Amino acid sequence: MAQKPSVPKGTRDFSPEEMLRRKYIFRTIEKVFQKYGFLPIETPAMENSETLTGKYGDEGDRLIFRVLNSGTFISNVTSNPVARSRWMRLFNEADEGTLNVDQYYQEALSKDLPLISNKALRYDLTVPFARYVVQHQHEITFPFKRYQIQPVWRADRPQKGRYREFYQCDADVIGSTSMLNEAELIAMVKEVFERLGLEVQILVNHRKVLAGLAKLCRVENRFIEFLTILDKYDKVGLGILELYADAGFSRASIERIELFLTKEGVHWSTPLESQLFAQFTTYGIDIGLQGLKEMNLIQDSVDALLGSNPIGHFSSVFSLARGLDYYTGAIFEVKAAEGSLQSSICGGGRYDDLTGIFGLKGVSGVGISFGADRIYDVLMELGKFPEQVAEGTRLLFVNFGDREAAHALPLLRKVREAGIAAELYPDAAKLKKQFAYADAKGIPYVATMGSEEIAQGIVSVKDLRSGEQKAWKADDLLMALEDHTD
Amino acid sequence: MAQKPSVPKGTRDFSPEEMLRRKYIFRTIEKVFQKYGFLPIETPAMENSETLTGKYGDEGDRLIFRVLNSGTFISNVTSNPVARSRWMRLFNEADEGTLNVDQYYQEALSKDLPLISNKALRYDLTVPFARYVVQHQHEITFPFKRYQIQPVWRADRPQKGRYREFYQCDADVIGSTSMLNEAELIAMVKEVFERLGLEVQILVNHRKVLAGLAKLCRVENRFIEFLTILDKYDKVGLGILELYADAGFSRASIERIELFLTKEGVHWSTPLESQLFAQFTTYGIDIGLQGLKEMNLIQDSVDALLGSNPIGHFSSVFSLARGLDYYTGAIFEVKAAEGSLQSSICGGGRYDDLTGIFGLKGVSGVGISFGADRIYDVLMELGKFPEQVAEGTRLLFVNFGDREAAHALPLLRKVREAGIAAELYPDAAKLKKQFAYADAKGIPYVATMGSEEIAQGIVSVKDLRSGEQKAWKADDLLMALEDHTD
Repeated sequence: MAQKPSVPKGTRDFSPEEMLRRKYIFRTIEKVFQKYGFLPIETPAMENSETLTGKYGDEGDRLIFRVLNSGTFISNVTSNPVARSRWMRLFNEADEGTLNVDQYYQEALSKDLPLISNKALRYDLTVPFARYVVQHQHEITFPFKRYQIQPVWRADRPQKGRYREFYQCDADVIGSTSMLNEAELIAMVKEVFERLGLEVQILVNHRKVLAGLAKLCRVENRFIEFLTILDKYDKVGLGILELYADAGFSRASIERIELFLTKEGVHWSTPLESQLFAQFTTYGIDIGLQGLKEMNLIQDSVDALLGSNPIGHFSSVFSLARGLDYYTGAIFEVKAAEGSLQSSICGGGRYDDLTGIFGLKGVSGVGISFGADRIYDVLMELGKFPEQVAEGTRLLFVNFGDREAAHALPLLRKVREAGIAAELYPDAAKLKKQFAYADAKGIPYVATMGSEEIAQGIVSVKDLRSGEQKAWKADDLLMALEDHTD
Repeated sequence: MAQKPSVPKGTRDFSPEEMLRRKYIFRTIEKVFQKYGFLPIETPAMENSETLTGKYGDEGDRLIFRVLNSGTFISNVTSNPVARSRWMRLFNEADEGTLNVDQYYQEALSKDLPLISNKALRYDLTVPFARYVVQHQHEITFPFKRYQIQPVWRADRPQKGRYREFYQCDADVIGSTSMLNEAELIAMVKEVFERLGLEVQILVNHRKVLAGLAKLCRVENRFIEFLTILDKYDKVGLGILELYADAGFSRASIERIELFLTKEGVHWSTPLESQLFAQFTTYGIDIGLQGLKEMNLIQDSVDALLGSNPIGHFSSVFSLARGLDYYTGAIFEVKAAEGSLQSSICGGGRYDDLTGIFGLKGVSGVGISFGADRIYDVLMELGKFPEQVAEGTRLLFVNFGDREAAHALPLLRKVREAGIAAELYPDAAKLKKQFAYADAKGIPYVATMGSEEIAQGIVSVKDLRSGEQKAWKADDLLMALEDHTD
């Protein structure tokens, strides 16, 4: 291979430095998940294609990475008369230039995709989780509180902050309709970011309130469109009124939408809530009233859970809609309150029928997903990673040659037995190189034990940060280190 | 979807119970890696096809999972005249029945594979690591001690104990020729299995000794064949002599092979070593002498590293060859000394030119790979997992309804603030169901706080293991729990 080796576009290697920081994020999230009673599961990287197809919309379907069947997969096409004739037409007419290949491919050839590919890489953790719950429903004790920290793959166009392989950290409660679950998830979100030392805005809204609003504005038959435009409110402000007009919403509807939007900007407020409550009551819009009630229940439980350290009236954002179609209740989104990265770093909500797609109806759930890669970018930008994010090597023994190294080995063993990560440089390289190695790895202490030290039964330990060097009796090395180790 | 959802064959879901046990294995291995100064890296699940192809032999190439290019990938074939005519021939002649499709596919169509698939799932962690080292050679401080714990994928025929997705836990030192590295890896192996409480046999051999032996027996020009048959010695014993005859090895060579085999069975021994040393010296076979010297160096360093707790003369196995072609020095293999599972649970060795395949010559490395899935199976069979492998929820608050739950929340917060994992059952379900939930999750303590307890300011805590129940002042709950918690 003449070319410099590389990784596929949109994917990344992680160096030790990056890994230690990533592990710090995963560990922080995982500890909070566990503290709240969530337990881990894992699902395979590959799912059967039919598990994933059709769950993420047409756009999502195109972004799923498909895995070729192993073996001589083309035989599946050549041995199937209908498929074979479709592929023959494709190649013959493409040769003659009489076929719109892309169009024909979309219309016809994609029918044969299962013949050459029946597996795909997971696109998120939610659909595999729904599949898991249905498949293992008889082994699961409900309510099922699970967390899952695994990579997902999307054939998105790579760009800054958007990767084709990235990790999701999901926690879901399934099989319980209690609003306590929503409150716990919000408390967890708060605790995770508190532990990470990051100021965030926790945005909350409720699909039922939005459904009530849609009814008030008489746009309930175009609910998803209504939401999609509303979701742009924090970007374009009242400009969305034009977008509604462009989309053909009626003058009367738009006037009503405007009425609520101008009340208090993007955020929920007591007057807005009162106004909604009054109107829902007047027009008998039960779903809206239900949504308001649930929002208040969640707020009360969050306050009780967080005690003297409440997050206040969390930043409920009226225009928050979130993309995924399956949310039916409360929806959450978290953004960093500091730094330049404004994209969502965490989000979730309640879905009333996630497992319905796999034949198990009426199981309600609520979940949250942390975007570890984006959290990483935010913490990096703000310099918020602790200086020492993990236990690297604490002590390096310099290697002066085979004889000296043999003397160092029993000491090395002792240090490790005391639970301190330590190494002996494997080769008798130049001292400068060995110290540079300690430096590059961030090892704070270097022990030298040359022939002279061996003769005297001592070992010399240098603190690379202070530059201080001190000789110790070999037997005292451990004690010395314990004193030194911070 | 009418069908019961499932996962692709050879892949698995992991339940919370399984995950906690798996994490215990990963954590144990990782802690030892870190203690010895290894640092983590991760590489993407997908590699460019050319990174993987040709690295695992023809059989390996067939077992690589390939990922379809996203978009209308067939256009790449139809717009390439040579490829298009190959595919047309395939479909036309398959239609007429005049083509051996499988053969044609192997010979011709596979040339076009990059047109429809240019990425593949990693097959092991070693080749991606070699690619990583070459790609990042200017950022790496050598010797580079890295570990990597990630899944790999192989389109193997699934069977008991063999999966299409499984984890490897690798540690390698690259850029150092010192035998101290081999010794450290062996010490690590010993420590990992000691921590897991599993008796193992650590088998060690040396490719250079085997190369010397091949020279002695005049079979050096058929070295790989010689090894492949030798590797069967522990299964078929002296039956391998017949295998050598069947493979056309000369009578003289086979007699010489027999001479060494019968000396001490499968294992290394002092007489065997003396005999080899004498013969290597007599015939001036330097590579063999070098191998013996290195074996002894490794043995001495392992003894020094393990101190008062040596593993003795490790079970050097003369017939151990290991499959992979790239090993050039010491080779290791670990088998459980207990239970029925006899397959290798860990293995590795030294390779002198791993990164050469990516254009970086002369960088020596040595590595070890733990097979977490097989270790799991062994520990399960032997009942060796500790009873409580992780911190699950310690305390469950019973939910008697909204009012009572609201009283429980501040207490729940306190318990969690003390670092104790705790939950409130989210719904006011029947008591029996709530206790069954605690039982299924292995939660040891259940706190009940009904209207009566609230009126009295107390909380009643039941130890589900002993059945003992006791009332505590709400303020004392934490103290009570700390006393209780084991």
